[in-house]
Amino acid sequence: MLYQQRDHKWVYLFTEGRTEMKALLGGKGANVAEMTQAGLPVPPGFTITTEACNAYTQYENQFPEGMWSQAQTALAQVEADTGKQFGGNQNPLLVSVRSGAAISMPGMMDTVLNLGLNDETVEGLAQFTENRRFALDAYRRFIAMFGNIVMKVPHEKFSRALERFKLQTDSGRDTDLGEDHLDELINVYKRIIFTDRHGDEFPQDPFEQLRMAIAAVFDSWNTRRAVEYRRIHRIPDDLGTAVNVQVMVFGNMGWGSGTGVAFTRNPSNGDKEVFGEYLLNAQGEDVVAGLRTPKSIHEMVNELPESYQQLMGIIQRLEAHYRDMQDIEFTIEQGKLWILQTRTGKRTGAAAVTIAVDMVDEGVIDRETAVLRVEANQLDQLLHPTIDPDADATVVATGLPASPGAATGIVVLTPDDALVYSEQGHPIILVRHETSPDDFHGMAVAEAILTARGGMTSHAAVVARGMGTPCIVGADAIQISEEEGYFYTKEHKVRRGDWITIDGSTGSVLLGQVATKQPELGDHYLTLMGWADGMRQLGVRANADTGHDASVARNFGAEGIGLCRTEHMFFGDDRLAIMREMILAEDLAARQVALEKLLPIQRHDFLEIFKAMDGLPVTIRLLDPPLHEFLPNFEELQVELYELKLKTQQADTFAKIDQLLHQIWEKEQLLHRVEQLREANPMLGHRGCRLGLLYPEVTEMQTRAVMEAACEAQAQNIAVQPEIMIPLVSAETELRHQRAVVERVAEAVLGTYGMKLDYHIGTMIELPRAALMADRIAEHADFFSFGTNDLTQTTFGLSRDDSGRFLSHYVTEKLLTDDPFQVLDQNGVGQLVQLGVERGRQTKPALKVGICGEHGGEPRSIAFCQEVGLNYVSCSPYRVPIARLAAAQAALRQQKSA
Amino acid sequence: MLYQQRDHKWVYLFTEGRTEMKALLGGKGANVAEMTQAGLPVPPGFTITTEACNAYTQYENQFPEGMWSQAQTALAQVEADTGKQFGGNQNPLLVSVRSGAAISMPGMMDTVLNLGLNDETVEGLAQFTENRRFALDAYRRFIAMFGNIVMKVPHEKFSRALERFKLQTDSGRDTDLGEDHLDELINVYKRIIFTDRHGDEFPQDPFEQLRMAIAAVFDSWNTRRAVEYRRIHRIPDDLGTAVNVQVMVFGNMGWGSGTGVAFTRNPSNGDKEVFGEYLLNAQGEDVVAGLRTPKSIHEMVNELPESYQQLMGIIQRLEAHYRDMQDIEFTIEQGKLWILQTRTGKRTGAAAVTIAVDMVDEGVIDRETAVLRVEANQLDQLLHPTIDPDADATVVATGLPASPGAATGIVVLTPDDALVYSEQGHPIILVRHETSPDDFHGMAVAEAILTARGGMTSHAAVVARGMGTPCIVGADAIQISEEEGYFYTKEHKVRRGDWITIDGSTGSVLLGQVATKQPELGDHYLTLMGWADGMRQLGVRANADTGHDASVARNFGAEGIGLCRTEHMFFGDDRLAIMREMILAEDLAARQVALEKLLPIQRHDFLEIFKAMDGLPVTIRLLDPPLHEFLPNFEELQVELYELKLKTQQADTFAKIDQLLHQIWEKEQLLHRVEQLREANPMLGHRGCRLGLLYPEVTEMQTRAVMEAACEAQAQNIAVQPEIMIPLVSAETELRHQRAVVERVAEAVLGTYGMKLDYHIGTMIELPRAALMADRIAEHADFFSFGTNDLTQTTFGLSRDDSGRFLSHYVTEKLLTDDPFQVLDQNGVGQLVQLGVERGRQTKPALKVGICGEHGGEPRSIAFCQEVGLNYVSCSPYRVPIARLAAAQAALRQQKSA
Repeated sequence: MLYQQRDHKWVYLFTEGRTEMKALLGGKGANVAEMTQAGLPVPPGFTITTEACNAYTQYENQFPEGMWSQAQTALAQVEADTGKQFGGNQNPLLVSVRSGAAISMPGMMDTVLNLGLNDETVEGLAQFTENRRFALDAYRRFIAMFGNIVMKVPHEKFSRALERFKLQTDSGRDTDLGEDHLDELINVYKRIIFTDRHGDEFPQDPFEQLRMAIAAVFDSWNTRRAVEYRRIHRIPDDLGTAVNVQVMVFGNMGWGSGTGVAFTRNPSNGDKEVFGEYLLNAQGEDVVAGLRTPKSIHEMVNELPESYQQLMGIIQRLEAHYRDMQDIEFTIEQGKLWILQTRTGKRTGAAAVTIAVDMVDEGVIDRETAVLRVEANQLDQLLHPTIDPDADATVVATGLPASPGAATGIVVLTPDDALVYSEQGHPIILVRHETSPDDFHGMAVAEAILTARGGMTSHAAVVARGMGTPCIVGADAIQISEEEGYFYTKEHKVRRGDWITIDGSTGSVLLGQVATKQPELGDHYLTLMGWADGMRQLGVRANADTGHDASVARNFGAEGIGLCRTEHMFFGDDRLAIMREMILAEDLAARQVALEKLLPIQRHDFLEIFKAMDGLPVTIRLLDPPLHEFLPNFEELQVELYELKLKTQQADTFAKIDQLLHQIWEKEQLLHRVEQLREANPMLGHRGCRLGLLYPEVTEMQTRAVMEAACEAQAQNIAVQPEIMIPLVSAETELRHQRAVVERVAEAVLGTYGMKLDYHIGTMIELPRAALMADRIAEHADFFSFGTNDLTQTTFGLSRDDSGRFLSHYVTEKLLTDDPFQVLDQNGVGQLVQLGVERGRQTKPALKVGICGEHGGEPRSIAFCQEVGLNYVSCSPYRVPIARLAAAQAALRQQKSA
Repeated sequence: MLYQQRDHKWVYLFTEGRTEMKALLGGKGANVAEMTQAGLPVPPGFTITTEACNAYTQYENQFPEGMWSQAQTALAQVEADTGKQFGGNQNPLLVSVRSGAAISMPGMMDTVLNLGLNDETVEGLAQFTENRRFALDAYRRFIAMFGNIVMKVPHEKFSRALERFKLQTDSGRDTDLGEDHLDELINVYKRIIFTDRHGDEFPQDPFEQLRMAIAAVFDSWNTRRAVEYRRIHRIPDDLGTAVNVQVMVFGNMGWGSGTGVAFTRNPSNGDKEVFGEYLLNAQGEDVVAGLRTPKSIHEMVNELPESYQQLMGIIQRLEAHYRDMQDIEFTIEQGKLWILQTRTGKRTGAAAVTIAVDMVDEGVIDRETAVLRVEANQLDQLLHPTIDPDADATVVATGLPASPGAATGIVVLTPDDALVYSEQGHPIILVRHETSPDDFHGMAVAEAILTARGGMTSHAAVVARGMGTPCIVGADAIQISEEEGYFYTKEHKVRRGDWITIDGSTGSVLLGQVATKQPELGDHYLTLMGWADGMRQLGVRANADTGHDASVARNFGAEGIGLCRTEHMFFGDDRLAIMREMILAEDLAARQVALEKLLPIQRHDFLEIFKAMDGLPVTIRLLDPPLHEFLPNFEELQVELYELKLKTQQADTFAKIDQLLHQIWEKEQLLHRVEQLREANPMLGHRGCRLGLLYPEVTEMQTRAVMEAACEAQAQNIAVQPEIMIPLVSAETELRHQRAVVERVAEAVLGTYGMKLDYHIGTMIELPRAALMADRIAEHADFFSFGTNDLTQTTFGLSRDDSGRFLSHYVTEKLLTDDPFQVLDQNGVGQLVQLGVERGRQTKPALKVGICGEHGGEPRSIAFCQEVGLNYVSCSPYRVPIARLAAAQAALRQQKSA
């Protein structure tokens, strides 16, 4: 058995490892070895293999035979390389002990720093660094870290002791602890370990420290949280972790030492210039703590010219080697430059685009790599105005960044006020407790929307993203008093008419008019998107309900409208009244009268959209929501009714009473009808094609509006491709019925106009049964469009409106890896999508299949759409560029894996 | 081509056909041929084949070559056999022309009677029958029938003309029309045809009549409704229909003629005695019309002794031939007995059981056939009290027969009154507009329940069926005035305390105390059920929430409890208060206090159930509904609040105002909490295991109650098999989490009691995602139980509570063949069930899988459960016998088809 093979190689010096040995050495071990082999000045060390970890786990937590002696041999080599001695009391060798699995598990496993310190070596370090306080501080940190991670003493015991000591200083900061304090604290820490471990001492022998630390890292592979993490991310349990033992270097050994970070290019704008900061005589954590202001990397040319030149050379080599912008940590210990880490540097969306395109121009990477390298979601930053980073701003409250972009305007608290003020020419920001479809007219004219309640998928959030309007939701510090005309937080009171600024990209609500910057879609962006369009297979359409939205979408590169929701057209003030008339109609004749009034309105809307999309397909979904969404709220009516009754009691003239009684009567009639239409579960109620089946005249009117608009557009030489979409089908009979109605009316309209034009009739697949019956449904469908919002709701049995109460708990507790309304649930809902596509195409091999719904603009979901062979995705206009890029990436990745 | 093969045999005399030629001759043709071949006196005739129909359809609606001449030849043979002449003006031969497909399509296709009549033959018939009025009446009926069915003149035109003539008679009945009237009416009918057909005359030539009638029957194969019917029932379009031309015989040719029906056994109670009625000198329709009272078949022995003896012989032969009770139509034309039709006789449930068991004893059929022969749903009649058929009764109103059985009691209009009166010892009937969970305490003590609103799956219906309480819902003629204490219809007013009787099997509401009969489950029943139990593979369990229900279920043969809904236990008055305390708790500690109070209550309930089910498994589902179901209704609270405010305005002392203000404050607190818990779509909201995940203490309390009750039962030597079921799981992580909580508490309880006992932990599969992920979910489940109610709701995206508005339209319009909440939708929902079973058993081959939900007691759904290999079904106690029989039938049918 491997465990007993004393001669098996368990330990690799950094000089021995190779980058291909990632499975054996872990990611970090292979990376450090690669840098070492490349001749970079990396602090020496060695890696204990993942095999050793597995052997340890399998054989009762015993090191495998020969491992420990190989580790000691490697350590001796490191001593020889550095001239330092492990456990020596002059210039002692200190090491870090870190885990490093083949697949990164960030934060899951453990690290021990400064290992090798004990009561003797700490004095050696003090002498060598000429800084006893530093040495003592390092020692007490090491004891606490070792005590906690290796010896499992609760972390709080150390931090509470530290707190007590800090109270003895003037400032209450641990940086003010003197040497005396630290000496005493070290003793206290040792006693804490002794007591907690019932007599086990903190080990003074550095080799014992090392042995225990290695075992602890091995053990950390099987902590509950690590096991859980692997289960969730489907990482096999038998990979094991490697252990890296590396020499510690110190940037705080005087003014010939220092530490810093450097980016090979500017991470903000992507300019090709080294960008970074450093501090002399400091450790990494000093840079982070911000107590001293670091200097620009280029000042090093004066202070440490040799190290600077060496660093610049290394920076160039690293970027060339990794063919990507690098984020490099370095330390200079007494004039000697050490590279501690290099990794792909984080960058803004703008920088990502610029760097990717530049690197293609420089011949460093090819176009495919460039397209893959920009995170699609990052494009969002390029498409919306942003807060000027140089502006001063006071944050009033913070909420969820529901729809990106920055906007400035005056506060209004009702949709009606929004209309009034915006008609007067004011930019307005609508602030609501939460929004409902009734608020739509106010939302449509707002520069931005802010709500106190709701989540990322609340009504406000969805509508705002659809319109590209910046939006913050769930800003729960805000209390709104609509009657009094203000909102307030603990510290601020903002009145109707006051200026505020919304940063929908971060969720910050700012006081006053804060300067914003318009996005610039430069040449780099256009170049990259051009490449992406050439590489993708998925079409990209937009969800848009108005001519304006359609224009915006087309400018962003949409190749058609994938979802035009006709119900949104009815929420305007005048329109809502007619819609209510239609719904409240007592009989067919009365309903027809109202429908006749709606016809020209819808026709006009469709004509605008056809004009905007000249030559591109437009998918129009027939009326979908339950009718009561257009009626006043039941509870509000009840309240109004009771208020009328109260008034009647107080009224003092017969005339007044008479008038009030009449109002009561009217209100009661309305209340009665609203009650009739109310539903226990409207999401599962009388909506979608179920409306058209009971009221075919609605389907008829909408079809007439679409086809008449199409004919009028064609008469104006506009190329139209209308696609009429029947929602919420669960049985093929429903589609057959509605298709017949649509065809009859469409042919009649074409006959009247004496025109021919291609139109298609298809359906949403948004119920599990529709996916299961897709073979039969396809018999009557020219196209499918997956409505993954509703499909997610029904597949999970989960109402999007109600899930806020527990879904965040689910994601936090890893019961679900993602909110399934944001990222398509490929495991469950995805099965139904795949099945629906396969069965639909069984019946009609050339069936056109798309996805509308929020997932159509989400990169991971788009990758899934590519895998299952959809024809297109459709998303809100502002996500069109993201979808284009994500679609290209999905196609490239699929090619790769094929 | 077949069409042109003049020599092909298109026509078969009844004497030529064979019973195996059903595809060619249709069901009716083959049947008549079979009787003819068996030597029974069947009126002669011939059948034109389905091939001829197909040839006709394919070749431009032309009779295939040779068909017409073959038909004429066959007709000549019939003339020879009968001595009558087609078109003769003495003793004319009249025929019926009927469709007859291989697969019965009842009511879909057409029939023409008395064909051969014209202005001349009608006089021949008059002379021959010595009844000119009869002959004229037959003629005018024939013209109208021919005019409508063959010549497509709208039926209303004839009936309107008839109406006008009837106004001229004294009684307004068509039987009072004299010969003069009829002569004139015949002319009017002819003119109607002439006008409507723009000059086409009603054809006087009998051969032309026959040719046209045959073509019309062929055409009826392709009417829209027939095509639709075939599409829905998946009958191929290319089967075609045969046409049967048969001699008409008349029972009204004097006192030596007659007509009647005979059952080979008593269809009411199954006694082995011929049962029937006849009328001399009459036609079939006279028996139906009820103008003369028919005599018992056995009186024929005196009036027509020869025919009687012949008939009795034939009856015996037919039953022996078909090995089942027959319903036989016969006519005696001038002393000659003709058998017109024999078919399997309809019978009551009791008769079905008796006949089936008797026939086994007689050696006529085997036990398997006996078990297959009783329609499972018919057992329902045996299990519930019924209205005494001899009792007089006045029907007040009629509704949907939601839960079978008859009951008598005094009317109460509120659940509280129900409690009060029943505690005083009165049998009560609860009459409500509709019911809600709040009414449960009143429903539980009611003899029967009557609601004015709701459908077959409304709250009242479901709860009543579960309890076996007779129930009528949707009796919409009823208006209820709760305050005034009565309900009324147009004609009746029934006060609180008045007696009424409910027939839940028919939906009739009767005035007063109408006598009812208790069901008798005799030896025949027990014998049959014994056979069935020996043949079935599916286990049968019951859904029961109380010890009493469990006992009832066990008496009906339940082999365990498949679903114990723990939430029903909280609806008692005292319990609801504690439940509300739990829900309204501000924090964990307060919630724990309330849970501690609920613990002993639940424990007691479970103990009762364990006692009743001693030795059998009991599946207990943890809390499932959203919490707000236990709280007062939001709107009602709002109303109460406003009423308090009105009162405050009217109050005249400070003390009163103070008191009212305090009440308002309390009500507002409650309203606030109720509002917090309200959901847009509660069915898809915070319920099921989602409750236990956020409030594990609820899961803990319920587990403790189950396990403590189990331990206490075991201490009393009761054998317990608790199965704890986690509801509404959509991801395996949910089940893993809840399973861990249950296991921890269960082990702790067992430790405390120092006991061992087998318990299992499983889950409902009631969401599409659960079925899709069943392989992973099975890792943490000892068993699955399909909750097909919720699975149907989510798969269809259809709320059971809201679907009433349109689902009946769907079924009427054949958009769906059945209400999917009554009969499991095998096409859609069934796919998920099958998938769930397969994937669950992929992971655990021996996984026990059942179904709870209403479908578990529905025979067609049970057949599906057998097909997909479930272990058991679970249904309400009163449906257990039905499920046992249906399960046996499903097993037998599966064996047969294998």
